[in-house]
Amino acid sequence: MKVIKGSVTAPKSFAAAGVHSGIKKKRKDLALIFSKVPAVAAAVFTTNKVKAAPVLVDKQIIKKGGPVQAVVANSGSANACTGRQGIKDAVETMKFTAALLGIPQDNVFVASTGKIGMPLPLDRIKYGVKLAASIMNESYASGTDAATAIMTTDLARKEIAVETTVSGKKIRIGGIVKGSGMIHPGMATMLCFITSDAVIERRALSSALKQSVGSSFNMITVDGDRSTNDTVLVLANGRAGNKKITSGSPGYGTFCQALEYVCLRLAKAIVKDGEGATKFIEIKIKGAASLSDAKKTAFSIANSCLFKTAMYGSDPNWGRIVSAVGNAPVSMDPEKLKVYINGILVVKNNAPVPGSREKARELLTGKNAVIEVDMQTGKSGCVIWTSDLSTRYVRINAAYN
Amino acid sequence: MKVIKGSVTAPKSFAAAGVHSGIKKKRKDLALIFSKVPAVAAAVFTTNKVKAAPVLVDKQIIKKGGPVQAVVANSGSANACTGRQGIKDAVETMKFTAALLGIPQDNVFVASTGKIGMPLPLDRIKYGVKLAASIMNESYASGTDAATAIMTTDLARKEIAVETTVSGKKIRIGGIVKGSGMIHPGMATMLCFITSDAVIERRALSSALKQSVGSSFNMITVDGDRSTNDTVLVLANGRAGNKKITSGSPGYGTFCQALEYVCLRLAKAIVKDGEGATKFIEIKIKGAASLSDAKKTAFSIANSCLFKTAMYGSDPNWGRIVSAVGNAPVSMDPEKLKVYINGILVVKNNAPVPGSREKARELLTGKNAVIEVDMQTGKSGCVIWTSDLSTRYVRINAAYN
Repeated sequence: MKVIKGSVTAPKSFAAAGVHSGIKKKRKDLALIFSKVPAVAAAVFTTNKVKAAPVLVDKQIIKKGGPVQAVVANSGSANACTGRQGIKDAVETMKFTAALLGIPQDNVFVASTGKIGMPLPLDRIKYGVKLAASIMNESYASGTDAATAIMTTDLARKEIAVETTVSGKKIRIGGIVKGSGMIHPGMATMLCFITSDAVIERRALSSALKQSVGSSFNMITVDGDRSTNDTVLVLANGRAGNKKITSGSPGYGTFCQALEYVCLRLAKAIVKDGEGATKFIEIKIKGAASLSDAKKTAFSIANSCLFKTAMYGSDPNWGRIVSAVGNAPVSMDPEKLKVYINGILVVKNNAPVPGSREKARELLTGKNAVIEVDMQTGKSGCVIWTSDLSTRYVRINAAYN
Repeated sequence: MKVIKGSVTAPKSFAAAGVHSGIKKKRKDLALIFSKVPAVAAAVFTTNKVKAAPVLVDKQIIKKGGPVQAVVANSGSANACTGRQGIKDAVETMKFTAALLGIPQDNVFVASTGKIGMPLPLDRIKYGVKLAASIMNESYASGTDAATAIMTTDLARKEIAVETTVSGKKIRIGGIVKGSGMIHPGMATMLCFITSDAVIERRALSSALKQSVGSSFNMITVDGDRSTNDTVLVLANGRAGNKKITSGSPGYGTFCQALEYVCLRLAKAIVKDGEGATKFIEIKIKGAASLSDAKKTAFSIANSCLFKTAMYGSDPNWGRIVSAVGNAPVSMDPEKLKVYINGILVVKNNAPVPGSREKARELLTGKNAVIEVDMQTGKSGCVIWTSDLSTRYVRINAAYN
């Protein structure tokens, strides 16, 4: 598998466009992704019980088994908490796009991100879809435009493409994502669209996606919340001509590996672009009694405001790490706990390691931090990623309107 | 019941002192509270699985059934994550104080707050205890000195006293507390010492305390964490001469009401002094399926960084409230949800109430905010209190050393 220059247009027969429809004042705000042929689709959605209208509509499409041929995604308005009108607007977007592109209504997937509780400006959406359909093409620049059009508070555009080989045929996977936190309900977090030209059975695509999301997007946190709009969609249009991938076929592992890589790179890009983030933090747990315990412990650290502010201050304040571990809803023995900061053992036998604090402090001045916790109670572990909590995060989110 | 000017020295036969022992550079850092006669004691401690040495030692005292006659509390060092040496130091403090005051070792309760992972400076503690014992007295000023000596990042001294009548006798309850967050592991959060001259049976005192803490200290959050040192202690020395209060006696309700009032006032004082707090926020949940659901929902809102930053920005961003409700691990129906900000209904039927945002924005400019959520699925509810998340909170916690 190799990383190639590209975006959602890297796989064969995918066209895209990103345009300014007028929802936002100046910036691009509407993306269209189109597959020349209907594509097998799989998706995962937010677990928040308050779901945005497009999520409710899309869930039906995926439940019916797809296929999907077009994706319309807008930024600037989340179409969440918009009542029945929100559902109507999402369905009208599907209908309009389907008629324009000459495809069935159910083959149009819709997504929105932006402010909660304002009605979707349908006239602008229609204008944008029309404009996007008239200029969409398979160039790298068009995929990049789509990646730009879904950004909200994101500082950086996030895209990737990879190439691998299945049954002697080159297949490609491309992806774009927006989000700079696990949640920003006021701006509706994370949207991820992944395309592939692989020939793959729907159920295999679905299980590959679940596995990949489990070890990537579900292993990051910026502020511990989940939005009303979170969506990860993968489309596979079969244009690569490989032997059909099924759950048991030899190509499945190869495809999973590539998809997981794409998800992980995009997930890490979100953390690096975390609102106001100054540090990229990796938290490794080992010696936990179970994977579930490891995850709970890792997220207890990652979501502790005190840990995050210490990281912002480049302070090796391991007391906050130990306390966060003790606060996780899992059984643990303080006497057995070992904590490493950037490779330096700072705590063992429930007491500090002499001289370690100064060494750890020196190593914390950079942009990366690795926190390793050995619970010494079992054989499970996990790795998750998060960012620090800066004064800029507070300013961004206090002033967002 | 009436509030009177006073502190832990308001009840009969309680002396106190607050001195500078040298743990901190300049400020008072050691408090001594002493009852002329052994007092019935009850306490609740942190649920963090990493517990500081004094907490481990005190739990034994309380388990054995008390009594307690002296309390030694220091700030500047938490004696947490200090291994076996920490336990030795806590026990040595008890031993030294007991010998000095001529009381049994087990009647000395110890507490520490401050930095985690540094050994307790025992020579300074001993110097401080000696000094405090030589000057302690029953004046209001001495109680106030004790309240000052346990402060860490607290901006304000927190104390209260109340008087009520049981079986024709006046009884008093006094209390001091330190803490400006539910947790600051690096500085060891919340210590609360309450004194009373009531005659009360130990089990009745214990259940009264649990009930009072449940509706006060357990209903506040600043940053959603619990420290390694959290302790609430109540002592009752029986000097008021009332008819002994038991769980079934007529005076029990009166005592509980007074104790709960003391706890609630001190708990709210912590929130108002929350690190960098600019707003005091009350969150009321009603219509929940159970008390447990109501609490989970309330804390999901109160601990959401996005909600807290919106409050800091005086922004009636109800989307973040709705999303936090949807993220709580309880079943809810978005269609039924009603949200009020300072009395203004802003959301119903999963859609915004027209014109409400502007009204709510006007009412949010002050120092107090009341968020009311009606889940309309049951008959349970709760009220909790929290503060906003400001750039100052981040600066305080990034720079703490």
